[in-house]
Amino acid sequence: MAIIECVPNVSEGRRADVVKSITDAVAHVDGVRLLDWSSDPAHNRSVLTLAGDAAPLKAAVLTLFDQASRQIDLRSHTGEHPRLGAVDVVPFIPIEGVTMADCVTLAKDVASEVASRFQIPIFLYEEAASRASRRNLEDIRRGEFEGLAAKIRAPEWAPDFGPARPHPTAGASVIGARMPLIAYNINLATDRLDVAKKIAAAVRHSSGGFRYVKAMGIALEDRGIVQVSMNLTNHEKTPIHRVFDAVSREAQRYGVSILESEIIGLTPEAALVAAAQHYLQLERFSPSQILERRLRNAD
Amino acid sequence: MAIIECVPNVSEGRRADVVKSITDAVAHVDGVRLLDWSSDPAHNRSVLTLAGDAAPLKAAVLTLFDQASRQIDLRSHTGEHPRLGAVDVVPFIPIEGVTMADCVTLAKDVASEVASRFQIPIFLYEEAASRASRRNLEDIRRGEFEGLAAKIRAPEWAPDFGPARPHPTAGASVIGARMPLIAYNINLATDRLDVAKKIAAAVRHSSGGFRYVKAMGIALEDRGIVQVSMNLTNHEKTPIHRVFDAVSREAQRYGVSILESEIIGLTPEAALVAAAQHYLQLERFSPSQILERRLRNAD
Repeated sequence: MAIIECVPNVSEGRRADVVKSITDAVAHVDGVRLLDWSSDPAHNRSVLTLAGDAAPLKAAVLTLFDQASRQIDLRSHTGEHPRLGAVDVVPFIPIEGVTMADCVTLAKDVASEVASRFQIPIFLYEEAASRASRRNLEDIRRGEFEGLAAKIRAPEWAPDFGPARPHPTAGASVIGARMPLIAYNINLATDRLDVAKKIAAAVRHSSGGFRYVKAMGIALEDRGIVQVSMNLTNHEKTPIHRVFDAVSREAQRYGVSILESEIIGLTPEAALVAAAQHYLQLERFSPSQILERRLRNAD
Repeated sequence: MAIIECVPNVSEGRRADVVKSITDAVAHVDGVRLLDWSSDPAHNRSVLTLAGDAAPLKAAVLTLFDQASRQIDLRSHTGEHPRLGAVDVVPFIPIEGVTMADCVTLAKDVASEVASRFQIPIFLYEEAASRASRRNLEDIRRGEFEGLAAKIRAPEWAPDFGPARPHPTAGASVIGARMPLIAYNINLATDRLDVAKKIAAAVRHSSGGFRYVKAMGIALEDRGIVQVSMNLTNHEKTPIHRVFDAVSREAQRYGVSILESEIIGLTPEAALVAAAQHYLQLERFSPSQILERRLRNAD
């Protein structure tokens, strides 16, 4: 059985009854698990975490679009978080027994169905993007719902599916495929913010570090320590343990020790298993040797 | 949902049809997964690996006793492996969402039911043992089926459940609860067998090492290297990473490096996650942050 994660972001974080009708609807789709959901009133936005195989997830996302487009009107929507549509963004994420190519195929299939059923323009992003200029979500979303009618008329912003005009109330949606993101922080046994900032600069992609690391140095004022706060955007190609070891070496150079690290939210099992394999120098190990995984695959 | 592993050892490893009738019967019990099974003709013995919650596992083990006691006659059984009964030993092993105490309760429940339904004497062992002298399987099994009629008459070998005489064809059975066993080997970048033997002696319980490590040093002749070959009998109390680090330090003392390590067969996910937590200095981490585990618990 394949496990795909799907994290739809919906532009409603204030009306609890609307959010509940959406989460209830997707949770009742056979073969789909609603693992988590949270609403942010300031952002006026909710984030759902679903998991399942391709066909049930497709059904769940179509249900989600149906509920959201009938109940959310972007013309009267306000909130701090940028957004383009009632269903703002829908990434599909390969977890187990499924490739990125499978998730790209699923994203395009769902995008096509949503566009034709609801007449909502769809932009494909990240691994599913049709051109390099659409890989980055922020580039697609720039101008937001309010600027969409003008933006979408330009040939370079013609949608990948659906009409070249915004849906009157539901705007447009961004659908795609990406790797799971791991929110990973390393706390240093020092209050020297300059050290955290230098280490963040050393390991992040934008300033010469690892390809799949975003990082910044911040102070944890209440604890009197500093943190290298990171997002790991592809744990297969830039694994946690390589980042940990690099931060550790950089810290040593300033006479600073690592106090601890932390993972915020969910992580795929594979990211932790890879770290164990690395440090234990495990060879000839197959994930099928993990009893729980054998159990899943016996289902 | 709780996950309990159960590894019944059955005294039949030659008649494939008999083994198949047993594996088929247990595999068809609702809620039970047959994860693995193997037969050894020289030992004339088969080992099954089942997983499930308590109630389905109990049903599967009763089915197994029914099949085995009708088809196996210990009076004509020969094989290299010591054995006391048609179903020789049945350990229950806590994997997830279940305590050792739960497995002890299950072992006693199954033992009582087997004894009264099949009139087979049962000895409880390991964590379920009724006295210290019965913790060790080898002590209970000493004398084997052939010596059982005499042994069981002694008050100190009265069975924990069932009649104080062997079942005429099925003998007696040993049922209990234990931690999962991890077969873990560390290969050294040297051909010096004396070094592997010294390190094995340093880390194993019997000669002053860790409480839950059995170890020996052996030569891998074809590869020209040596191995510290181990069984870890309680990975929670003596974790893999502590053993790895200790072997690494001992090896350094002889100027030897670790080439690699390997896990043979199955391991619980928790053993690898604990190693990742250790080396990454992960704090405030809960196994519920593992996406696949969240998924299992949403079932």
